[in-house]
Parts: sequence; C-alpha cells; structure tokens
Amino acid sequence: MSKFYLGIDMGGTSIKIAVVDDKANILEESSLDTDIKAQPKKVINDIVNACKILKYYGKVKSIGIGIAGDIDFKKGIVRFSPNLPRWKNVPLKKEIEKTTKKTVLIDNDANTACIGAFWLDLKSKSDNMICVTLGTGVGGGIIVDKKLYRGNTGTAGEIGHMTLEVNGNKCNCGNLGCAETYIGAKYLVNRAVELMKTKSSKNILKLSGNNNSNITPKILSAAAAAGDLTAKQIWSEAGEKLGVLLANIINFFNPDSIVLCGGISKAGEELLKHANKQIKSRAFKTAADSCKIVISKYTNKLGVVGAAMLVKN
Amino acid sequence: MSKFYLGIDMGGTSIKIAVVDDKANILEESSLDTDIKAQPKKVINDIVNACKILKYYGKVKSIGIGIAGDIDFKKGIVRFSPNLPRWKNVPLKKEIEKTTKKTVLIDNDANTACIGAFWLDLKSKSDNMICVTLGTGVGGGIIVDKKLYRGNTGTAGEIGHMTLEVNGNKCNCGNLGCAETYIGAKYLVNRAVELMKTKSSKNILKLSGNNNSNITPKILSAAAAAGDLTAKQIWSEAGEKLGVLLANIINFFNPDSIVLCGGISKAGEELLKHANKQIKSRAFKTAADSCKIVISKYTNKLGVVGAAMLVKN
Repeated sequence: MSKFYLGIDMGGTSIKIAVVDDKANILEESSLDTDIKAQPKKVINDIVNACKILKYYGKVKSIGIGIAGDIDFKKGIVRFSPNLPRWKNVPLKKEIEKTTKKTVLIDNDANTACIGAFWLDLKSKSDNMICVTLGTGVGGGIIVDKKLYRGNTGTAGEIGHMTLEVNGNKCNCGNLGCAETYIGAKYLVNRAVELMKTKSSKNILKLSGNNNSNITPKILSAAAAAGDLTAKQIWSEAGEKLGVLLANIINFFNPDSIVLCGGISKAGEELLKHANKQIKSRAFKTAADSCKIVISKYTNKLGVVGAAMLVKN
Repeated sequence: MSKFYLGIDMGGTSIKIAVVDDKANILEESSLDTDIKAQPKKVINDIVNACKILKYYGKVKSIGIGIAGDIDFKKGIVRFSPNLPRWKNVPLKKEIEKTTKKTVLIDNDANTACIGAFWLDLKSKSDNMICVTLGTGVGGGIIVDKKLYRGNTGTAGEIGHMTLEVNGNKCNCGNLGCAETYIGAKYLVNRAVELMKTKSSKNILKLSGNNNSNITPKILSAAAAAGDLTAKQIWSEAGEKLGVLLANIINFFNPDSIVLCGGISKAGEELLKHANKQIKSRAFKTAADSCKIVISKYTNKLGVVGAAMLVKN
C-alpha cells in the first residue's frame, strides 16, 4: 500500500503545497499567496485550511515544511526567515501538529531542495550527493547514505560561504571572497553593469530596455545565447568560480552526484562548460569522473517535493 | 567480555603493530623495520610472523592495516604506495586472510589516522569529525555518525587538494593553489629559505647548523618558540591558510570536532592562533563556536590504533 506525504514550500511570494507518493510523484498540488504582513498565526491558519481541503489530506500521515532562514530542525522553530520579517521564533512544528494531529517536520529551503533533487533529478539513485542552490544566495545540502546530513548545529551545506578568494569581494555574511559573491545573482548583475561601462552589449541593453536595473540572470542567459560577448564573459567568469568550488567539494567529499538548481543554474551549458574545465584540472580524476553533475530540471518543484519527503530522508 | 583488535601501520621506515581493546586502549605493541626493497610476499610473511608471536594474537578476530597510497578498500588491494615502490596491485587483504584466517581490512593512512584520532583524541565522543593530517602531504579523513565516510570512489577527505588560491603555487597533483602547497612541510621549508635571503634568522641558522638543507618544520617550530621573527612569520602565514581551509570545512560540513595531527601540527599554538583568527572571521558563528579544534596528542599512535579499529568504524 502506497504512503502519502504532504509538503509545503514557504516562499517569499507564494506558498506551494503538494501531496506526493512514496516515489515522490506529485499527486495533488495547491498554492496560496504569501502574506508577509500577516501575523504568523494567521498564515499558519490559512496554510492548514488549504491543506485540509486537499483530496489526499485524510490519507497523509506527515507534513514537511521548507522555509528560508534560520530554522531549528530539532525543535521545529522558525528562528528567523528573510522572506517573512514578522516571523521570529515561531514554533511552526508544534502549531501545525496541534491543529492537524499529524507528524510535522520543518527545515530550511536548501535542505528541502536537496531532498527534492535527490528524488526528482536523481530518482533516489544516489548514496552521497550535494545539491547547490544558485540564486540570489548560494546554498546547498548534503546527502550521506541517502539521508540528509545536517551537521553538528544544523548549518551543514553553507556552500555559498566557502572562501574562493582570500581577499576577495565583501560578502553580506561579513567574510571576504565567499563563493556567493562571485556566482550569486546580485554579483552577476553588478558585474554586467560594471563591464558595460567599457564594453558594448547590444543584447543586454535591448533585453533590459536600456535600463540597468532591469538586468537579471535570465537576461544575461538570453543575451549569451544570442552570442553577446559581454554576457558570455560573465558566465565564463562565474563558471570558473563555480568550477573551483565544485572541485573543492569533489576532493573533500567525493560525492556520486552534484545537482545544481535555482535561477542561475538555468544558464545551463553556458555556465557548466566553464565549471567543467576547472573541475577537470583541479579535482582528482577518479573522483571527478565518477561524479555526475546535473542541472536540475525541477527547480520550481524541488522545495515542495523535498519538504514532503523530509520524513523519509 | 572485551574484544581485541589488531592494527598494523605500514610506514616507510617502520611497521607498527598493536593490539587494542574495544575502547582502543593499547594492550600490546610491536614493530619491525620496513624493508622497502623486499618483495611484497616477504614483507607480508614477516608481518604475519610478528603478529603471531603476540600474546593476544589468539584472542584477536580481526586485523586492520593502514598504508599510504592508493588503496582499494573494498577489494583490499594496495594499488600503489609511495612508501613501498615494489608494491603494485598487491591483494594484501586476501594474502593476510589466507595465512591468519582472520578478517582483514585495509585502508589508506589518512583514514586510519582519522579513526585513531576519533578514539584517542576524542575518546569516541564525537558524531561528525574531520581529521587533518599535516605532514609532507596534507590529507584528511571524515567521520559521519561515528563511521568513516569514504565517498563514492574512496577518495573522500583529500583536504590538502582543496584550492586556496585559484592561481597559486603549483602542486604535485597538477593543480594550482592546493592547500598542501601552503601548509605542507616542503613548502614551509622552502618558504624559510626564501625569507632568509632577505631576513636575518639567527635561530633557524643555528638550529640547522647553517645548512638550509637541514631545515625542518620542527626547527621552524623551535625557532619560533625562541622568538625568531622569520620563523614566526612562516607559522603566521601557514596558520592563516590553514584557517581559511578549516573555515571552509566548517561552513560546508559543520563538524563537532576537527583534529589536527602530523608533524606540522606539533607547532601547536604558534600555528593555531593564526588559524583561529581566520575561522572566527570566515566561518558561521554557531558552527565555529560548536566545533572543537584539537591538536592530536597521539600523532605517532593514530595510525596503528586507527588500523585496529577499522573494523569498528
């Protein structure tokens, strides 16, 4: 008999809900807008109501929730979430368990994305994998023996804050030269603006309507695809940095798979071809050859599916 | 009833043998010189004979062996060992099992050192730890949930070949800027010679008998302890690089403990105080605060004890 799992992905603009089976196939989906101004109690109430009207709700024994920020997995508390400024030390697990009488697990969105990638991109055919989330922030998750590895205090997988340049760019975390400051969305856009001061870039200008503040990684990706040399340079630089980062991870952790997800990963081969060069020159050959590097095909589903499968991983 | 474990540490100059109990207490020790010119069969025979005369031999059910090089843990084959140039694809596990009728496990010396540090330095009171071996080479081992983590192809823990400077020093592995090229013994000695071209260093000169080819990390350590500014600079630079490396490991892996071992680690506080500064500025606070950084007190015993305990971890 199949088991059913309910997942909730609490993003800054929408809250996605899905029920999946024990192979992580999505059976039912729903969503609601994120009301960032509302009290946590109100938001929690809305979520529970949206869950209760699902067809599969009665069959579900557990609920998993993914949310950006500082999450206490063990106690089930949202200490702080950048997406939800009113949420401070909210006992999310307890609140939802109280009204649903189901087992509830919560974790940060990089961990749920990692579990989602394990199921959707790798079809659970991996023992030791790394997921790298490439967006405004750069994060990640680690799977060891098919289980999420959280580390001693639950912060394992802070891949974006590994140093790539000892005296490099200033990062929000206070450190210098973090990976995030070279491959995060904000940096790529800033780099485009910087390069365009001295280099022509018809495609970026056109796609952004001649307004620098409209530039996004998506535009840089489209411009590169159209042959724009400035855009290509940006992806080449970012790909090189990503490659050094992944080579370090491969030498340290020797995973069987690395899944790249998030908006930046959609640059695809334009990014990956430069990363692969660095991996080839920097990582141990047997480790690099045996490590499958995959760009997620399911970026928008990873969070909700991974949240649902938290209880299994 | 206590169990007993036999360990063998095959070094380039001596082969250490020990029997330990199930808390890794050494009960009996022995050793023989490493005959690097002999055929592997002869060496194996000598080792087995040295084991068979141990008082505890009859009570031992398993034998663990640590050896530098490219070791196939699963098949129990020594593919290649830098310490033993005649050893190529030697089925060490099979050979010793045949003559002893005991379970035999073999692994590389960084992994056995890691298990040794887990038992001797941490008294097995750790769930997730990293051991960093600081010698001519820089290596490491990873423990997850009290078990050695080997990765997908058995090369996990190649900490010395994580990139610290993208366009940095040329490493033997072919890569640029590997950690080993900044904190390995050879680099430290070369750096001393380089600095001494322009800086006076009475202590290093005296301790090395005015002969650069006599300089060792031990001499650099003694010189620094005597207040030698050149030696202090070398440890300060190496400590900084080590700190960046450890901060990266802490952000990625969030271990509860890191044990530093090997000859270089004996520089102690002279090295660690600079490393700690980098960790403080680069690693996430909760992760860094919760991570115990220990300099091994048992560097010379880690290999043989870790080998003995291979079967437990």
